[in-house]
Amino acid sequence: MTAGRLYGVGIGPGDPELMTIKATRVIANSPVIAFFAKAGRRGNARGIVDQCLKPSHVELPLYYPMTTESHFDDPPYREALAKFYQESAAAIAAHLDAGRDVALLSEGDPLFYGSFMHLFVRLRERFAVTIVPGVSSICGAWGAAATAMTWGDDSLVVLPATLPLDQMTRRLALADAAVIMKIGRNFARAREALARAGMAERAIYVERATMAGESVVPLGAKGDEPTPYFSMIIVPGRGRRP
Amino acid sequence: MTAGRLYGVGIGPGDPELMTIKATRVIANSPVIAFFAKAGRRGNARGIVDQCLKPSHVELPLYYPMTTESHFDDPPYREALAKFYQESAAAIAAHLDAGRDVALLSEGDPLFYGSFMHLFVRLRERFAVTIVPGVSSICGAWGAAATAMTWGDDSLVVLPATLPLDQMTRRLALADAAVIMKIGRNFARAREALARAGMAERAIYVERATMAGESVVPLGAKGDEPTPYFSMIIVPGRGRRP
Repeated sequence: MTAGRLYGVGIGPGDPELMTIKATRVIANSPVIAFFAKAGRRGNARGIVDQCLKPSHVELPLYYPMTTESHFDDPPYREALAKFYQESAAAIAAHLDAGRDVALLSEGDPLFYGSFMHLFVRLRERFAVTIVPGVSSICGAWGAAATAMTWGDDSLVVLPATLPLDQMTRRLALADAAVIMKIGRNFARAREALARAGMAERAIYVERATMAGESVVPLGAKGDEPTPYFSMIIVPGRGRRP
Repeated sequence: MTAGRLYGVGIGPGDPELMTIKATRVIANSPVIAFFAKAGRRGNARGIVDQCLKPSHVELPLYYPMTTESHFDDPPYREALAKFYQESAAAIAAHLDAGRDVALLSEGDPLFYGSFMHLFVRLRERFAVTIVPGVSSICGAWGAAATAMTWGDDSLVVLPATLPLDQMTRRLALADAAVIMKIGRNFARAREALARAGMAERAIYVERATMAGESVVPLGAKGDEPTPYFSMIIVPGRGRRP
């Protein structure tokens, strides 16, 4: 019997219409649909593909063992995550070994900060894998802001706000355009780094891009309340323009 | 009469199946389809949407006034480009004024190094504009390489190889993952910058990602021959991985 194929399927930033034709085809043809979710939730990825699923699909939800992110430096947290990825990879491998293709959903693009990669690196030696690129969350964010992002010789930097302040500031200072992700509890530090790099004036705060409740405001108009998971700060470039 | 709406439609990195559902719907419903092309060519964007067009569509090709890129510092070149963008914006405005929606195609994502932006900034004050994000060329490239690109706290930098060597090197040295675009005649300089930043070993050269003739090789295996327009170098991150 031939083993199944694993598909890493980018399903875009949130709006189901921003799935690619290829993603919908691969999902339709895969007997097993795997996706990450918080325990007790259906999960955002599962919601995006809702209209694509048929009763014949086998759903394989992969529930994170914790409901809030902890520090990666915390050994119990790291061990729990490693165990979770190992068990998730085994659950997918069982379907692949039985000859069933598996579509593993990934919000945005599968190779850009996606949990998909943790299973990909555990399975790619044993099984055939096809990557289906998706519209990334950053394209969703600047599209929602409708701001011209990178021009001509602009360079772009994408940073997680989990970096220390000085590292964020130095990297921003060398860039023309920027995206700061994972701002959550790190919002105040990200705002400070942007101010130090001289970028705060033109920065834009984007929440839930392409989803219900989408919100776009100048960074200066954003209060200090905590930001949700689906939020980021974008800084448009100012490159050459004929 | 109500003016038409301008759609900036990202059509993805090359494979027509990597268009979004929204892009195909907007194209189907727009009476006018505008796209950039080199004089005497049909153009790559037009090729991607070929299966979406009907005889009833009005096609509005926008032909670049020159066939090779010159230096932006060259005033006649810059003036010719400005004139071209002005005339292209006027041609689109004529349709919008007549109440016809216009879908302006953009390879990859419309707000990420797209010529679309030069018309967008000339038209957005007068007309309603909707941005349709697309799968960007960089997601197409690392998808073709099937390499896990950014993890955990990785930062990513995207650079045009048109930058001076020292600027490229300094920006690369502060990044975990990188993409160098517009390598064309600047390939040797990009390779040197990667070597100086200690990234050459893990760099990957990608040509015509998701298109016919796609090619992926380690940077070290790439010869010094000129690279085509649809080529870039990617450097995967090495972030934390439980």
